[in-house]
Amino acid sequence: MLEELKRAVFEANLQLPQYRLVTFTWGNVSGIDRERGLVVIKPSGLAYDRLTAEDMVVVNLDGEVVEGQWKPSSDTPTHLWLYKQFPGIGGIVHTHSTWATVWAQAGKGIPPLGTTHADYFYGEIPCTRPMTNEEIQGEYELETGKVITETFRFLDPLQVPGVLVHGHGPFAWGKDPANAVHNAVVLEEVAKMAARTYMLNPNAQPISQSLLDRHYLRKHGVNAYYGQ
Amino acid sequence: MLEELKRAVFEANLQLPQYRLVTFTWGNVSGIDRERGLVVIKPSGLAYDRLTAEDMVVVNLDGEVVEGQWKPSSDTPTHLWLYKQFPGIGGIVHTHSTWATVWAQAGKGIPPLGTTHADYFYGEIPCTRPMTNEEIQGEYELETGKVITETFRFLDPLQVPGVLVHGHGPFAWGKDPANAVHNAVVLEEVAKMAARTYMLNPNAQPISQSLLDRHYLRKHGVNAYYGQ
Amino acid sequence: MLEELKRAVFEANLQLPQYRLVTFTWGNVSGIDRERGLVVIKPSGLAYDRLTAEDMVVVNLDGEVVEGQWKPSSDTPTHLWLYKQFPGIGGIVHTHSTWATVWAQAGKGIPPLGTTHADYFYGEIPCTRPMTNEEIQGEYELETGKVITETFRFLDPLQVPGVLVHGHGPFAWGKDPANAVHNAVVLEEVAKMAARTYMLNPNAQPISQSLLDRHYLRKHGVNAYYGQ
Amino acid sequence: MLEELKRAVFEANLQLPQYRLVTFTWGNVSGIDRERGLVVIKPSGLAYDRLTAEDMVVVNLDGEVVEGQWKPSSDTPTHLWLYKQFPGIGGIVHTHSTWATVWAQAGKGIPPLGTTHADYFYGEIPCTRPMTNEEIQGEYELETGKVITETFRFLDPLQVPGVLVHGHGPFAWGKDPANAVHNAVVLEEVAKMAARTYMLNPNAQPISQSLLDRHYLRKHGVNAYYGQ
Repeated sequence: MLEELKRAVFEANLQLPQYRLVTFTWGNVSGIDRERGLVVIKPSGLAYDRLTAEDMVVVNLDGEVVEGQWKPSSDTPTHLWLYKQFPGIGGIVHTHSTWATVWAQAGKGIPPLGTTHADYFYGEIPCTRPMTNEEIQGEYELETGKVITETFRFLDPLQVPGVLVHGHGPFAWGKDPANAVHNAVVLEEVAKMAARTYMLNPNAQPISQSLLDRHYLRKHGVNAYYGQ
Repeated sequence: MLEELKRAVFEANLQLPQYRLVTFTWGNVSGIDRERGLVVIKPSGLAYDRLTAEDMVVVNLDGEVVEGQWKPSSDTPTHLWLYKQFPGIGGIVHTHSTWATVWAQAGKGIPPLGTTHADYFYGEIPCTRPMTNEEIQGEYELETGKVITETFRFLDPLQVPGVLVHGHGPFAWGKDPANAVHNAVVLEEVAKMAARTYMLNPNAQPISQSLLDRHYLRKHGVNAYYGQ
Repeated sequence: MLEELKRAVFEANLQLPQYRLVTFTWGNVSGIDRERGLVVIKPSGLAYDRLTAEDMVVVNLDGEVVEGQWKPSSDTPTHLWLYKQFPGIGGIVHTHSTWATVWAQAGKGIPPLGTTHADYFYGEIPCTRPMTNEEIQGEYELETGKVITETFRFLDPLQVPGVLVHGHGPFAWGKDPANAVHNAVVLEEVAKMAARTYMLNPNAQPISQSLLDRHYLRKHGVNAYYGQ
Repeated sequence: MLEELKRAVFEANLQLPQYRLVTFTWGNVSGIDRERGLVVIKPSGLAYDRLTAEDMVVVNLDGEVVEGQWKPSSDTPTHLWLYKQFPGIGGIVHTHSTWATVWAQAGKGIPPLGTTHADYFYGEIPCTRPMTNEEIQGEYELETGKVITETFRFLDPLQVPGVLVHGHGPFAWGKDPANAVHNAVVLEEVAKMAARTYMLNPNAQPISQSLLDRHYLRKHGVNAYYGQ
C-alpha cells in the first residue's frame, strides 16, 4: 500500500546524508496521505545505507503501525501531532544538522539577516521555550510536538516552514517529503550564515520588512515571478 | 545563435556547484556579445544538474527575450544594468556563497588583509548601502544594479571585480563568464580568510599600499610578471 | 590467531580516515579478547591506505608483542592501562580529531548542551588535569592512562565513553572496536557543536537533568526504546 | 636531466590540491639537488590538473633557467635564498592555505597549544615582521626570503620547518619535496586547531616545555621511538 508515498519518503530520507544533514541515523523524514489519514515514516535506528523503500513504516494518526516489519521512528508522535495541527503540510523532517542544532543549543531563534533567509522563511525561524520537567518525563515526543505548535500559535507554518526545538535540534516541513528536506537544507545554510554574521558583526541587524516582503513574495504567492 | 557564448555561459554556470558556490539554484552567470548587444544568461530556477547549453536564454539590452524557451534569471535586470555601466566587462556572476554573503549580511566591505586579496582586488571589496524602501518596492532588480554602480562611482570595476550587496550577497564580474566565476571563487576565499582573521585578531590591519601595489601589479597591467 | 578480532580492529582503523577523524597516521584503534587477555592494536606510524588486517599487532596485558612483525602503536601502554581499569570496555580509539582536540587544547570539558550529547554521553565529557613534569618525563604513555582513570574516579566509563587529555586530544571507547569509533565520531560532532554554541551564545547553559536523563535512557539501559 | 627529482617535485605539487592546500594556482613546491646545485620548481601560473613532470623547470642557484620550456614560479628567488641559507633542507613549499594564511594576516605566530604541534614543530611557528616599503619595492621575492631567515636567526629551521610571512601566507620545508608538503599539511591543521582553541578559550596557554620536549623528541632525534 502507498507505494508511491513510500518511495517518496524513502528517497527524501536518502537525501539527508547526501546533503550532509545527518551523522549515523540522526534524522528522519515522513510523509502523509491526507485522504487516507496514513503517515509513512523511517524506521527507528536503521542505517541509511541499508535502507530500502520497503523498510518504510505506515502508521495511522493514532500512531498504530498499519504496515511494516520495523518499529517506526521514536519521533513519530511529534510528526503525527504536527500533521494534525498543521493541515497544510505534507512532509516533515527532523535532523541534528550542525548549525541549526547550534542555534537550538544556544536557545535562540534565527533572525532574517539576509535575502537567502527571506527567500524561504517569512520572518524569524523561532526557537521553542525549554520543555518543563513534566513534559520531558511525560509523553516526551508528543510534548515536543506541542511545544512546537505553541511556538507557532501566532505564526503560519506555511510561511515559516521550520523550527528549532530548544536544546535539541531542527524540524522542517513542506508540501511533501522532498520539499520538507529542501527546507531543511535551507534552514541549515541560513543557520550557518547567520551564526557567522554575528561572529563578524555582533551588531548585525535583520533586513528591512520591505526587503523581506520583496524576496519572500517574489518566490511565493500569487505574484511570484521567480522560476518557470 | 551565439552558440559559442551559450556554451561558455553554460560551462561557467556548471562551475558554480563544482566550486561549492551555490546551494540548489542560488546563482547565475551571464555573458555578453558586445558587438551584437546580446546577453546570454541562465534560465530562472532551473536545477544545475539538468541544465544544457541549449537552455541558456538570449536577451537584448532592453531585457527582451530574443531566443530561448525559458524565462531568464530574475536577476537579469541587474546584469543588464552592469553591462551597460561597466563597458569593460564580459561576464557577470551572482551567488549566495557562504562567506561573501556573511560579509553582505554584516554590512561590511572586505579590507585587503593579505596578498591573496591583493592578487585580484586592488583595494577593499565594497559593500553597498542598504537599499531604500522605494528602491525595493520599485524595479527592485534594476535598482540593485544602480546601488552597485553608485558604490563604484569612484572605483574602477576592472580593478575591483566584485561587490557585496547589503543584506543580500555577492556579484562578481570579469572579461568573460569563466573569468567572472574565477573572481567569484577568489572573492569567497578572501571573504572566508578575512572573517577568520578578525576572529583571531580583532585589530588586524590592512596590508600596506606598497604591498597591495606590488601584488596587484605583478599580476595585472603592462609590468605583470606572474604566469607565462 | 585472533583473526576475527584482527579484522575488527583493522576495519575500525580504516573508519578513522573515512570519518575524517585523522590526518596522516594520527590515530589508532585497539580491541581486546578478555578471555585470553590479549589486545590487538594498530602498528606505529603505518599509513592507513597501506594497512592490512595482517599488520595488526597482538600484545599481552604486559605490553609484550605476542604476534606481528611491527612495533605496536606508541600509545599502547595507555590502551592497556584503560583495559585493565575499565573492565567493561572492548575497544579503544585515540585520535587528534580537530574539534575534540580544540577542547583538549582549551583545557575544558564539554558540557551537555544538547540532546545529541545526551544520546551518547551521560554528562560532561571531562578534560584531564595537565600532566606533571614527573609524569611526562617518566613512563609518559602509561601516565596518560593514569591521568584518565584519575579523571574517571567518580565517573562510569560506560556512561561517559570518552575523555579529553589536556593539551593533547581525545580517547574514546566502547563495547568493541567499531563501537569505540562510533563514539569517537559522536565526540567530534558534539565537540564541534558545543564550541560553536558558545561562539554564538557565551552564556549557553547545559540542558536540564531531566532532558539528559530522557535522551540517555531512551537509548541505553533496560527501558531503552530507540532502535529495533 | 634530474628526472627523479622532477618526478618528486611534480608529485609533491599534485599533493597540494589533494590535501586542499591550494585554490587555483596559489602554491608551488621545489626540490634541490645539492650536489649539482640545481633546483627543480613548478612553472608560474600553470593549472595543477594539466601539469606533467616534464613541465617542471630546472634553475641554478643564481635563478637562471637551465632546462624547461616555461618560466619558473615567480616565488623562485625566495626558494633559492632559503636553500642557500638553510643547508639542511631538500624541499620547499609555499601555499595560501586558509588557516595558515589567517595567522599570517593576523600577524601572529602560532604558539604550541597541543601535542599535535609538538610532534612536528619544536616551539612557536613564527610570523615575520611586516616588510618595509623599500623591501617590497625592491627585489621583493628575494627580500621575502631574507625576512624569513632574519626571523630564524635564533631558530633551527630543521626543528621548526615552517614560517608565516606577515600579511601573505606560509612557507614550509623538509628533507625533500614530499616531506615539505607533509609539514605544510601539518602547519595548516595546527593553524586551524590553534585559531579555534583561542575562539573557545582566549586565555589558552601553550603546553609545558616538558610536554613539548616529550612529543618532539619521541618523533625526532636519536631517542625517537615513534614509528617503525
